[in-house]
Amino acid sequence: MKNYNVALVGLGNVNRTLAQILHTDAARLAEETGFTLRVTGITDLRLGTVVDPDGVDMGAVLALRQGETFAAIGGVETCDNETFIRTCPADIVVEATFTNPLDGEPALSHVRWALESGKSVCTTNKGPAAFAARELKALAAEMGVRFEYEGAVMSGTPVLRLASGPLEAVGMTGFSGILNGTSNYILGRMEAGLSQAEAIAEAQDHGYAEADPTADIGGSDVRLKVTVLANDILGANLHAHEVPMEGITGITPEMVAEALSRGAHWKLIGQGSKADDGTVTVSVAPQMLDADHPLAGVAGATNAVMFDTRFLGAVTISGPGAGRVETAYALLSDIIAIDAYSRQHG
Amino acid sequence: MKNYNVALVGLGNVNRTLAQILHTDAARLAEETGFTLRVTGITDLRLGTVVDPDGVDMGAVLALRQGETFAAIGGVETCDNETFIRTCPADIVVEATFTNPLDGEPALSHVRWALESGKSVCTTNKGPAAFAARELKALAAEMGVRFEYEGAVMSGTPVLRLASGPLEAVGMTGFSGILNGTSNYILGRMEAGLSQAEAIAEAQDHGYAEADPTADIGGSDVRLKVTVLANDILGANLHAHEVPMEGITGITPEMVAEALSRGAHWKLIGQGSKADDGTVTVSVAPQMLDADHPLAGVAGATNAVMFDTRFLGAVTISGPGAGRVETAYALLSDIIAIDAYSRQHG
Repeated sequence: MKNYNVALVGLGNVNRTLAQILHTDAARLAEETGFTLRVTGITDLRLGTVVDPDGVDMGAVLALRQGETFAAIGGVETCDNETFIRTCPADIVVEATFTNPLDGEPALSHVRWALESGKSVCTTNKGPAAFAARELKALAAEMGVRFEYEGAVMSGTPVLRLASGPLEAVGMTGFSGILNGTSNYILGRMEAGLSQAEAIAEAQDHGYAEADPTADIGGSDVRLKVTVLANDILGANLHAHEVPMEGITGITPEMVAEALSRGAHWKLIGQGSKADDGTVTVSVAPQMLDADHPLAGVAGATNAVMFDTRFLGAVTISGPGAGRVETAYALLSDIIAIDAYSRQHG
Repeated sequence: MKNYNVALVGLGNVNRTLAQILHTDAARLAEETGFTLRVTGITDLRLGTVVDPDGVDMGAVLALRQGETFAAIGGVETCDNETFIRTCPADIVVEATFTNPLDGEPALSHVRWALESGKSVCTTNKGPAAFAARELKALAAEMGVRFEYEGAVMSGTPVLRLASGPLEAVGMTGFSGILNGTSNYILGRMEAGLSQAEAIAEAQDHGYAEADPTADIGGSDVRLKVTVLANDILGANLHAHEVPMEGITGITPEMVAEALSRGAHWKLIGQGSKADDGTVTVSVAPQMLDADHPLAGVAGATNAVMFDTRFLGAVTISGPGAGRVETAYALLSDIIAIDAYSRQHG
């Protein structure tokens, strides 16, 4: 059976969950996918670096105690991401670190280093795809490898791969999405009578919202995802800063109640549309949706994207937009896509 | 550019629409898909048979006047489907005839003849997949060709291909679907205050419901689709007659109003679930769904399937469940899948 050597960059929640799945579900995954995965290296800011061409002992990695580093299992306490990514004996680099939403770094450099050294790369970070998708895809094509990022939008819910696969040739003309679970949860709780401040506090209690909820309720998280979708699905070449953005901070309890009284719902909508001449228009803004709109019933922290198509009219996919396991699955689906490409091209 | 020769079996609404799309959108489709399609033969009960290895003149076919047959454009008035399917110089047979819901014929034989003669086949008929999916897939594998039937469930909305592609390895444990637009439309109109008889009459006026609406409201249409989904997605080996079935005829205006008063909705649900030991349980029956259920808001003639998965929880896709253009697109997506297989396997 074909094996891929995998290098993990970052061992936070997402990559740790992926490592756990690979460790405990190896047999079932091999049966379902037709290949095996061997982790040959891990680097992490807190844990250091460990490399073993024969396979890192993942049982030992997952059993590390609080405060222990990879030095305890034959690695080192330091990490140099560029050297690690360029030299680790891996076919696939799995990138799941922090992204700066202003410039996509350091994830963007991680992806570039992986591709430059002839490795396929998958990432859950929005940054690389939102700031440099075209450059990175061209680089991947030049090197004969893949750049995959399903988890950048709606975690493991396969929005990007549905559009590029089963909806190929459907005549895609646009999309509208509920792309931030926190703001959708907050709007839902405002429908239940809470003020926005109360709803934000509740979302923080539930772990949906960060201590600083600005990226969620201000729209900048959605803006990155709209950029990824517009570039990927509509063939645009946009930079995130070019997307007009308005968050939900201006939505008052009165507006929510007034909409609700006629069956309508306020939603934070990220959307893009392509004109006949190919021009792509994008926006992030709250919209009041009538009850029969496909996105009106998307409740709680669920995310959804409605595709506008020439042959099928509206097609909508909804599912989780976040979560440890859900995002780890996005990486697994990326690896499956890399395998499919690899089989097809030699 | 790679070309596939295509034989059309049946030239009713669906195949005629496909032919129109292939005729008028040829350049755009070639650009998007990387291949061309040439219709080398057509057979139809009313129109007769026409075969031309260099390509049937589709402009002439589409311009045939009422009452004219293929005899007017160099063909014959008669048709012998078995001989046509076995001998037509085609790589792909596109089957879009009538199916008998009791045994899947004659579509089932059409598919078998195509596969036996080494041709890939795609069909919008539920019959072949509902009554003989396992046999026909094995036959296709043996002959090194493909049997595709995305249009059998939800027309062009890519339910089957989403499950087998982007949701591969997601740990699929079950599905629930609104799979009949007519009954969903009727239930929606009953929510607006109509009796079931009035709603049926209105659906007939709109062209949603047949003169005899039994298959729609009695559940047998959904039963065929549940069989296809259970066999395809959950690995079952069910025969349509094994699926317990209850339609919507027992749903009264009082039940609808009572549900609505607490925000709930009656829906005709086709579902399947797989136990840990692999046992698959299926059913077709009306269910009352709370407002926050992903299928509760699916309105009008729209269809939807919610997948239950181990890694992502619930993922739902909604879109058209019928329509000329929508179903023709299903065939086009099948042909794209056949091309992908063909590229991968030499």
